[in-house]
Amino acid sequence: MKAEFDTIVKTLLTLIEKKKYTSIKDILVTLQAADVALIFDELQEESLPILFRLLPKEQAAETFVEMDENAQELLIRSFSDSELKAVLDEMYVDDAVDLVEEMPANVVKRILRQADAETRKQINEILKYPEDSAGSIMTTEYVSLRPKMTIAEAIKRIRRVGVDKETINNCYVTNDGRVLLGQITIQDIILAGEDELVSDVMDENIIFATTVEDREIVAQNFTKYGLLTMPVVDEENRLVGIVTSDDVMDVIKEEATEDIEIMGAITPVDKPYLKTGVFETFKSRIPWLLLLMISATFTGIIITHFEDALAAQMALSAFIPMLMDTGGNSGSQASVTIIRGISLGEIEFRDMPIVIWKEIRVAFFCSVVLGLANFAKIMLFDRLIMGNSDITFTVAAVICLTLVFTVCIAKLVGCTLPMLAKKVGFDPAVMASPFITTIVDAISLFIYFRFATLILGL
Amino acid sequence: MKAEFDTIVKTLLTLIEKKKYTSIKDILVTLQAADVALIFDELQEESLPILFRLLPKEQAAETFVEMDENAQELLIRSFSDSELKAVLDEMYVDDAVDLVEEMPANVVKRILRQADAETRKQINEILKYPEDSAGSIMTTEYVSLRPKMTIAEAIKRIRRVGVDKETINNCYVTNDGRVLLGQITIQDIILAGEDELVSDVMDENIIFATTVEDREIVAQNFTKYGLLTMPVVDEENRLVGIVTSDDVMDVIKEEATEDIEIMGAITPVDKPYLKTGVFETFKSRIPWLLLLMISATFTGIIITHFEDALAAQMALSAFIPMLMDTGGNSGSQASVTIIRGISLGEIEFRDMPIVIWKEIRVAFFCSVVLGLANFAKIMLFDRLIMGNSDITFTVAAVICLTLVFTVCIAKLVGCTLPMLAKKVGFDPAVMASPFITTIVDAISLFIYFRFATLILGL
Repeated sequence: MKAEFDTIVKTLLTLIEKKKYTSIKDILVTLQAADVALIFDELQEESLPILFRLLPKEQAAETFVEMDENAQELLIRSFSDSELKAVLDEMYVDDAVDLVEEMPANVVKRILRQADAETRKQINEILKYPEDSAGSIMTTEYVSLRPKMTIAEAIKRIRRVGVDKETINNCYVTNDGRVLLGQITIQDIILAGEDELVSDVMDENIIFATTVEDREIVAQNFTKYGLLTMPVVDEENRLVGIVTSDDVMDVIKEEATEDIEIMGAITPVDKPYLKTGVFETFKSRIPWLLLLMISATFTGIIITHFEDALAAQMALSAFIPMLMDTGGNSGSQASVTIIRGISLGEIEFRDMPIVIWKEIRVAFFCSVVLGLANFAKIMLFDRLIMGNSDITFTVAAVICLTLVFTVCIAKLVGCTLPMLAKKVGFDPAVMASPFITTIVDAISLFIYFRFATLILGL
Repeated sequence: MKAEFDTIVKTLLTLIEKKKYTSIKDILVTLQAADVALIFDELQEESLPILFRLLPKEQAAETFVEMDENAQELLIRSFSDSELKAVLDEMYVDDAVDLVEEMPANVVKRILRQADAETRKQINEILKYPEDSAGSIMTTEYVSLRPKMTIAEAIKRIRRVGVDKETINNCYVTNDGRVLLGQITIQDIILAGEDELVSDVMDENIIFATTVEDREIVAQNFTKYGLLTMPVVDEENRLVGIVTSDDVMDVIKEEATEDIEIMGAITPVDKPYLKTGVFETFKSRIPWLLLLMISATFTGIIITHFEDALAAQMALSAFIPMLMDTGGNSGSQASVTIIRGISLGEIEFRDMPIVIWKEIRVAFFCSVVLGLANFAKIMLFDRLIMGNSDITFTVAAVICLTLVFTVCIAKLVGCTLPMLAKKVGFDPAVMASPFITTIVDAISLFIYFRFATLILGL
């Protein structure tokens, strides 16, 4: 697929050089819009407007929607007013909203001037919903039917209005006040008798979202109930739009990416890595690095505090990284699992006692195995093979006891912090590896030196 | 929603105690199958079969599909043969396959005996495809049309066979040898004239998958091209099934969860956290903890090697955790971004030079800011406020120089290892925080002590 794609790009580049536009057109029309967009994204700026004008109207609009924002802006600036209007007319309203959200103010003005009055109204309607809400990802293009229509009348209406709609898989039944009454699938319509009433065939038991509902919840319900579309209603239960499955897939992907980035101590950037500038990437990373670096001061203070003990038994220092890393890894295993569970709606705050009880048992088994393995490794490798006589049985015991306690505390910190964060309204993903590691580092060193001073009498 | 749900469960529990089955039935039939399944999962084992039998046939099958595997097994064991057959008859083939994959062997035998011959053949067909392939997530229930049919004939065929199919949004056009020729949406069919030919209306330019294609690639193409269903063909281009959007959403979620777990040094478990046993959770975590613990031996060896230098200047030890953590965080920021980019198909091996060049620049800016901030912090806090006279200008310089080098190397290691892993066929997600941290720890300590011995002459 990829190799084939590269060949097409190469062929096109040669044809562009030779200005063989008819052949170029013949190739382009056989391709999917998403692929044409990928090709256009790789082209030289000057040839873009010429090539774009080769596309038939519908393919042009579909391609335009898939292109990256820089190319879109470039194209809009090269469009005549009537060309811009033609593209806008072919676009779905939710795609037009995405465009408006990404373009600079002067381009937005031009777009809104060229959109027809109805589209402009719908764009402004969607723009007013909060980011990440159901309202912001819905489209206002759907087929609505009335309960008293016959199936034959419904089919007639779908034939008349359906061509402009993003989907006709589910049609929605509303009363005169636009209040949502039920839904009817195209399957129901095809299979029902012509004279049956819409109200007799429709399903009144519908899963819907309100305009302000979090898009993550919308995605969760969408997958839970296996939907193809979900209606969105306002406070008065009036149908204002529908969410389609392609938008939900984007939400699922974006939310996962956001979680992964936050868990990696990065401020989420909305753009793919290769399209993000160096300075933007820098900005998304440096605050966290600074914050976490400054937090490590506590760990430094603990070491300074026990400097004399450490100087008296230098062998202890060699095990600091192992203890810190194992503690950090144990804690982040627990936090990662809990954070993902919260994101998928599988774990809630009220599950806290179950989670803690489970983590205690897992931590117990893990710490015993790690402690024993480490004891064996120290006595065999460090003492016997490396011949380090400083490492006595007691020193090994201090290290392994620390390990056992650190792993247990790390697992507890790792599983509780994400849930507490969620409870107080923070993003649980913040409580992943980097933060847990910083906290567990300080705890593990404190335990280490406490055991060392007590047991070894330093 | 959640609160409402809890109320319903409570009401049902009271009704079950009072054995008011008619009222229970009246409540259950108003609920969505996914919700009924959630309720059933929370019920006592003994009441489950009784309640299940209250459901109408179709709702019963839909609920059964959504229940967890323990409850499913319990129910199957309580079913008579004819009850089992009734549930199986109502299930879609892909759901039946999931069931067969999860049940123990003796239950599977009973299921296959009760399924009708055609279903059994289809189940076995799907079972033979490798895990995580397009074939393993497809369903064999779709509507196929012939090119020479008129639209009126096509509608007649959909009316006749469509009721059993998971979706009729896209119908597929095949020749007598089942070779895929094109697709036609239900929208096209509704909007076309009755006498037009299917071959004139159908779209021949289709995105499809082969049976053995990776399900992650299927999901990527599904979202890239905004599909509702995707046809799956065998090596001879014969249509064997379709992938539907609900399955793709599950794939997207599961793949993200898998990545997140591997990135957290956990062997992926296919079950939700709260349904996974303590021992299973232990088993998924302990190998990684052991491996990473043993790897930290290298870091220990480095410290032991430079023990004399460290003893001569004990103040250096207080900064070991900060250097290790900042290095680890810098590296994992880069690796997390690259791993996610690879998973989403945004970054490929051939992008390596671009990625490295970008990370070098980001690392440069990050390390300069971190180095300066750290220098200021050491001179102001550690030296002036804490009055630690060991920390001279030169010591501060050693620490900050180490920081600059560590951050740069960490970013390079973090961005290259996932791509190299992918290239040699490993899962790039393994190269996340825990591994990068272990590697960067050793590197940062080596740099630290090298600078210390060179500059401070220890």
